[in-house]
Amino acid sequence: MPLKIYLAGPEVFLPNAREMLDRKAAMARAAGFTPLSPGDLKVEKRATMRDFAFAISEVNERMMIEADAIIANLTPWRGISADVGTVYELGFMCALDKIAYAYTNVGKRHFERVADYYHGRHARDASGTPRGPDGLAMEDYELHDNLMLPAGAERRGGKVVIGNAPPDAVYTDTTAFAACLRHIAEHRT
Amino acid sequence: MPLKIYLAGPEVFLPNAREMLDRKAAMARAAGFTPLSPGDLKVEKRATMRDFAFAISEVNERMMIEADAIIANLTPWRGISADVGTVYELGFMCALDKIAYAYTNVGKRHFERVADYYHGRHARDASGTPRGPDGLAMEDYELHDNLMLPAGAERRGGKVVIGNAPPDAVYTDTTAFAACLRHIAEHRT
Repeated sequence: MPLKIYLAGPEVFLPNAREMLDRKAAMARAAGFTPLSPGDLKVEKRATMRDFAFAISEVNERMMIEADAIIANLTPWRGISADVGTVYELGFMCALDKIAYAYTNVGKRHFERVADYYHGRHARDASGTPRGPDGLAMEDYELHDNLMLPAGAERRGGKVVIGNAPPDAVYTDTTAFAACLRHIAEHRT
Repeated sequence: MPLKIYLAGPEVFLPNAREMLDRKAAMARAAGFTPLSPGDLKVEKRATMRDFAFAISEVNERMMIEADAIIANLTPWRGISADVGTVYELGFMCALDKIAYAYTNVGKRHFERVADYYHGRHARDASGTPRGPDGLAMEDYELHDNLMLPAGAERRGGKVVIGNAPPDAVYTDTTAFAACLRHIAEHRT
């Protein structure tokens, strides 16, 4: 039985959502896996937006429970950090001790991205903790997002692949995703 | 046995982190619960920042596994959405079917916050989907963050409390947190 991999990421929001979801699914199939993607199953509209949202959540969670693994696209999304829907899914799969992989298409580390957010106006406090001008502490673990994300995946034997796509391809480049597929094929099957 | 509640949120990054963590823990105790907070256990420095981060992740995940419930502070963090560390933890607890509550101290809905991010320069495409000038689709489920977060909590019988703290107290106001504690006390014990 081929491993079932849940393909988590913000692709559903792209202008070419269907094309991207199909491309990633085809790559997963070519690597010997069965892809499961949010957006595979058409969810019928409900009486309220809230019921509709809950129905989508239920479908996605059911797919995750069925899957053996997740590859989470943690590329920064409208700001510093990954898409929170994808992050919820990574936490969900880690709790179930599934095989957890992730990637980002932005090579810059989390600390540097937060420093950019503060336009470099951060400084160390008396205890040595770097803080923004708003007083909020900046994590500095040399990682690419909040520590819970990469640690959750890698402590379970997974891997976070760091890509470096050109600015106009951060949501469409599949180099780092392909590296995740290769790594799973070599080490987890 | 009092319910053990994991208090997830970005409080550890605040200038008054210890005070905030202690205040929330005291409120949870006063409501009849046993609080578990990230930051309760001192994690010793390790040889590398990466090992240190992984040790913190392990401690936090162990606390979550021990807990019966989570209250996740989903107040927007350095941008549109909740702190991704907290979101990972909410997904983690939902996967384990724990009692899942959340709150935000910002009353504005997710869609409006994304519209602010785009300075109102969004528009509907031919199919009626609202998109930013970058072409990325905007979720519009009348919720306060990506649908996976509130749906994950509420589909399991939990609740997302929407607060509306003054701008200078979005990270310190505990009104919505107190409402979560009350709700759990009344409905889940």
